[in-house]
Amino acid sequence: MVIIVMRPTATAAQIGEVLRRIEAEGLHAHLSRGEERTIIGVIGDDPPKSKQRWEALEGVEKVMPVTQPFKLASREFKAEKTLIEIGNVIIGGDEVVVMAGPCSVESYEQMLATAQVVKAAGATVLRGGAFKPRTSPYDFQGLGKEGLEILAAVRAATGLLIVTEVMSPEQVELVARYADILQVGARNMQNYALLHALGEAQKPVLLKRGISGMIKELLMCAEYILSHGNYQVMLCERGIRTYETATRNTFDLNAIPVLQHLSHLPVVADPSHGVGKWEYVGAVTRGALAAGADGLIIEVHPDPSNAWSDGQQSLTPEDFAQLMGQCRRIAEAIGRCIAPALPSLSQELPPSNGRAGDYQT
Amino acid sequence: MVIIVMRPTATAAQIGEVLRRIEAEGLHAHLSRGEERTIIGVIGDDPPKSKQRWEALEGVEKVMPVTQPFKLASREFKAEKTLIEIGNVIIGGDEVVVMAGPCSVESYEQMLATAQVVKAAGATVLRGGAFKPRTSPYDFQGLGKEGLEILAAVRAATGLLIVTEVMSPEQVELVARYADILQVGARNMQNYALLHALGEAQKPVLLKRGISGMIKELLMCAEYILSHGNYQVMLCERGIRTYETATRNTFDLNAIPVLQHLSHLPVVADPSHGVGKWEYVGAVTRGALAAGADGLIIEVHPDPSNAWSDGQQSLTPEDFAQLMGQCRRIAEAIGRCIAPALPSLSQELPPSNGRAGDYQT
Amino acid sequence: MVIIVMRPTATAAQIGEVLRRIEAEGLHAHLSRGEERTIIGVIGDDPPKSKQRWEALEGVEKVMPVTQPFKLASREFKAEKTLIEIGNVIIGGDEVVVMAGPCSVESYEQMLATAQVVKAAGATVLRGGAFKPRTSPYDFQGLGKEGLEILAAVRAATGLLIVTEVMSPEQVELVARYADILQVGARNMQNYALLHALGEAQKPVLLKRGISGMIKELLMCAEYILSHGNYQVMLCERGIRTYETATRNTFDLNAIPVLQHLSHLPVVADPSHGVGKWEYVGAVTRGALAAGADGLIIEVHPDPSNAWSDGQQSLTPEDFAQLMGQCRRIAEAIGRCIAPALPSLSQELPPSNGRAGDYQT
Amino acid sequence: MVIIVMRPTATAAQIGEVLRRIEAEGLHAHLSRGEERTIIGVIGDDPPKSKQRWEALEGVEKVMPVTQPFKLASREFKAEKTLIEIGNVIIGGDEVVVMAGPCSVESYEQMLATAQVVKAAGATVLRGGAFKPRTSPYDFQGLGKEGLEILAAVRAATGLLIVTEVMSPEQVELVARYADILQVGARNMQNYALLHALGEAQKPVLLKRGISGMIKELLMCAEYILSHGNYQVMLCERGIRTYETATRNTFDLNAIPVLQHLSHLPVVADPSHGVGKWEYVGAVTRGALAAGADGLIIEVHPDPSNAWSDGQQSLTPEDFAQLMGQCRRIAEAIGRCIAPALPSLSQELPPSNGRAGDYQT
Repeated sequence: MVIIVMRPTATAAQIGEVLRRIEAEGLHAHLSRGEERTIIGVIGDDPPKSKQRWEALEGVEKVMPVTQPFKLASREFKAEKTLIEIGNVIIGGDEVVVMAGPCSVESYEQMLATAQVVKAAGATVLRGGAFKPRTSPYDFQGLGKEGLEILAAVRAATGLLIVTEVMSPEQVELVARYADILQVGARNMQNYALLHALGEAQKPVLLKRGISGMIKELLMCAEYILSHGNYQVMLCERGIRTYETATRNTFDLNAIPVLQHLSHLPVVADPSHGVGKWEYVGAVTRGALAAGADGLIIEVHPDPSNAWSDGQQSLTPEDFAQLMGQCRRIAEAIGRCIAPALPSLSQELPPSNGRAGDYQT
Repeated sequence: MVIIVMRPTATAAQIGEVLRRIEAEGLHAHLSRGEERTIIGVIGDDPPKSKQRWEALEGVEKVMPVTQPFKLASREFKAEKTLIEIGNVIIGGDEVVVMAGPCSVESYEQMLATAQVVKAAGATVLRGGAFKPRTSPYDFQGLGKEGLEILAAVRAATGLLIVTEVMSPEQVELVARYADILQVGARNMQNYALLHALGEAQKPVLLKRGISGMIKELLMCAEYILSHGNYQVMLCERGIRTYETATRNTFDLNAIPVLQHLSHLPVVADPSHGVGKWEYVGAVTRGALAAGADGLIIEVHPDPSNAWSDGQQSLTPEDFAQLMGQCRRIAEAIGRCIAPALPSLSQELPPSNGRAGDYQT
Repeated sequence: MVIIVMRPTATAAQIGEVLRRIEAEGLHAHLSRGEERTIIGVIGDDPPKSKQRWEALEGVEKVMPVTQPFKLASREFKAEKTLIEIGNVIIGGDEVVVMAGPCSVESYEQMLATAQVVKAAGATVLRGGAFKPRTSPYDFQGLGKEGLEILAAVRAATGLLIVTEVMSPEQVELVARYADILQVGARNMQNYALLHALGEAQKPVLLKRGISGMIKELLMCAEYILSHGNYQVMLCERGIRTYETATRNTFDLNAIPVLQHLSHLPVVADPSHGVGKWEYVGAVTRGALAAGADGLIIEVHPDPSNAWSDGQQSLTPEDFAQLMGQCRRIAEAIGRCIAPALPSLSQELPPSNGRAGDYQT
Repeated sequence: MVIIVMRPTATAAQIGEVLRRIEAEGLHAHLSRGEERTIIGVIGDDPPKSKQRWEALEGVEKVMPVTQPFKLASREFKAEKTLIEIGNVIIGGDEVVVMAGPCSVESYEQMLATAQVVKAAGATVLRGGAFKPRTSPYDFQGLGKEGLEILAAVRAATGLLIVTEVMSPEQVELVARYADILQVGARNMQNYALLHALGEAQKPVLLKRGISGMIKELLMCAEYILSHGNYQVMLCERGIRTYETATRNTFDLNAIPVLQHLSHLPVVADPSHGVGKWEYVGAVTRGALAAGADGLIIEVHPDPSNAWSDGQQSLTPEDFAQLMGQCRRIAEAIGRCIAPALPSLSQELPPSNGRAGDYQT
């Protein structure tokens, strides 16, 4: 792959001509419009000598190879951080976005209660699984479509955005109809058929690192999505599998600066899975935030000891609220802030009971 | 889950009545017919007190719980080894089955040439990928359906069975039309939608251990397939990810006896991926065989240095033939043998050029 | 092991009598005097029934078993955090102690220059290796005794405390003569002869986690030192070996809260080894601090590209000073502070050139 | 390091002159006398241009650099396998040497009984720990010198050679007085002071791979011993630490051919620690043997359930005898044999009770 860097003064027509010439040769063009310049990635079997051919086109400043195996995901291709905008929320900027909620969607009441407390404490995105990848075929596999409808109803009632997992290519269309962010779980990091389908979706993707995914493999998986046209990808560090058994996984703090050095994509930390025991989630959250995470995704359950899954790593609403207070101070210390809670929707929306009624019918 | 062990003298009618009663209560029955007895697994939310109810039925000898999280895959459920019969080949018995061939299907000529030499050396199954999971979206992704047609044509020409990878649920039907054994790759070990689809297929499955899959997780993934009705599953040890960088993966020799102790399913070893460098494939193959593997799957390419993928771990035909000679002696030393090469099909089939012609039209 | 908890009102005579009885039975007593109570650990083959015997003694409030395999290192034995006092510096309290300096002691000039800049930026302890464990027998093995003399001279010139590694039992006496803190390197975590010797030394010990040491093994190694009478032990998380190759080691952030939950001993983080590349040391330092580390040990070299060892993970003085500024703000955000730099010794001491002269003669 | 390869016709005087010149320049010479040629390794800061200087000396055929970081341990330095001769036993040749015995020396009776059965089954070396590295300071630490005396007495009674662990530099002289092979345990692989001391000892060393030792690190540790003058080193694969918890360690079968490819030193496999459960030791032993191990070290205890340590991975004498039968057949299948049991000493020695009497006094 080579990158064609256009001059700041390049016109739309000049850019269009470059794109036309790329396609005319059977190659693929990927466009990145920065504030100052436009950059065009050329993907395909382009012989090295071709470099000069692109340089000769009008408006082109220079042509460079991308040395990393991940191309569109690399800082070489795009030096500025990617900002993912969803409604009023921007992920990847100075504001650190907090996603919180239970492991599984269990009921409308459970989700609404959780949503209200995590919103009050500072979260802007609600998490919750409708389709659950479970180690045993005999375990609860999620509420499925009903779970998605619950999530949508709670979004309507609270204004929180929704992140939820999608497990197979054929589910993408369905889940994308309900969710604001499509989550790829750790077990599916290298499910290429799924990544391909997400590359053709129009929704942002939260891509979790596989339990033994290398940092470069995670970036290659992001590349699968980007190369199929979806540039809205967040990378999620959620703990890796090591020999240590005192914790469920080993949260790889190093991955945060390394990913940010190698890629322009926002990096989200999942301390809940990263350590796997609620007693330690606070410390790992504070550490991930101070190390530079652009977002946090944290399991919160109104009654962890009765959660249908992952209760042992879920915070109570009280513990979560206290943790958010600490996070606000740490964010400030490093020149960032926690993304402010969205304006309450209570005036604009029918009472949440009514929404629940809508959902239940 | 409980297991209902029928008396040796139980009649078909008695067995049928037990099955009827299980289904009548909304539970699922899994049947295992041994030489002496029939065993029935009852899956579902069966309250513990129910044990007595089953014991009271006619023909029932005893009722026992399965303590392992994998039920149908466990030795508790089925003490005798599972034998998978495909044509004249039996996997899981005293004969060790050898599967060999290139990483990727590249052309009919390449596959036919490889098939002839591996058959001559003792292989009974031909391996070769038509759909290739690749780390980079820009790499060769396999010939797809054309690759399957090549495999089928080579099977017709040589009589070798075909094992090839299936990567997503929607591919299962297509691949099952061509292949004798459906392979789940390491990256997809926990792709539950795929496992579910394979549970409904009628073809044997070769389930590869994930690169960081625990032995018990591998068995839980087999359970996904078994619990959906397909009992023909082989477990494949293919090396795990560790800190060691001198080899591509670390072949987990221990897994062979552990899997055989915990499960009745046949265990296949993949030394090529397990070590990842052709110089060492011979030693690892000999070790896996002596440790008790029921099958071996080995990469062989007529010209490894020009292979489209995995050339560094492919044996030449000469090296493979020499290795098979050693394997025959080791198999004999442990009271087994290498499954004999199938009778040549050359008399019964049109010349292989003709078959290639068929394929190419 | 059982713990005898004395009443708050227990007299010295009552405590003495308990100790006398323990020794009289051939058991070993370990004393922990808290602000409110004294606790006595009884180690040896004490039959369970003996519990009542201790409860009957005057001044005894209760007798409890320690369930963890590490006894003296556990929170069960000692609920309050251990404070290690060295001169004016207290490790384990609200002040976070910063240790900084080069990997190897190279010369008096190098050490003095480094000491002055790290002190100015906020460090209170100077690190530097005189005995270096090296992977190759042909590499520089450290200046040895000359290195220790340089460290002592720089301490005299700057007032910084000294931490340096000791590699074998017979070196303990020599190194303890010069250093304020004796470091056990990762390779020697389970060098029991060394741990035994350090248990008999009178100097605080910084015990580094082995490159594949489990958290519980680290605590057992601390127990070796404690059980031989030296209670001044710091636990150091310095990164573990995993499959990830993008970084030198994987810094185990989880270990910080887990160690603090299980043990009363102070926890020090070593981000330099934990990530192994200077670009990422800042982020990992900030994360470790926010997660609750009681101390930080960081490699700083006046000229990293010419360092004799570990240059690729050493910060420049400028980067270190900037990082300390960030750390001060994060420490404040979590209700702690960076231990203040010690008062300058420049008035009290001969000019550093003179000290160097002393050393050089 | 460079290697000076002498001509086949080089005289002793020519070799002596080369050695003299090397030492005269302050460099170190390491001599390797093969059947056809003598090779001299030159270690020290030898400027590259010096190559020509050595080539000009009489009797020198060529001068080559060693590219591996391990020099004396590499196949570049010495192409033929190293044979270690101890009495009538040769390790590293066609005969595979079996070392067997309990984890810990417990008593003369226990050792003698074990020695007699393992000898009868085919072992030529008796293993047993007198100094035991234990995770807990409160666990049994071995019988110490008394254990060494027991070992020596049993050697006298049976003619078996003795391998036992040495844990610190100051123990080397003592242990070397009693043992035929000095074992470095996994925890001490990088205990450089110990390796240095062993380099100066006159006894063969069995160097165990650390629990997370890389293959190249193991070779560098061997290099520490070789570079101090002791060339009789065996490398021992004994399982590494991975994420898998179904077994105690993961036996790295790959390491056997890799070590033999990179180094001329004999490779010994320790299946007992490699898998850690007696049920699986047989399969791992057969695998290691077939993969090419030059020696096997196996834990055998007359009464595993009452062993003082490692009972869960010890074979009974009956299981061991059966396993040896299988090993003989496998060895034959790969063109090797199990080193024959030594001639019984019963005629030449006083009755074993008498020897025990000697020891006990």
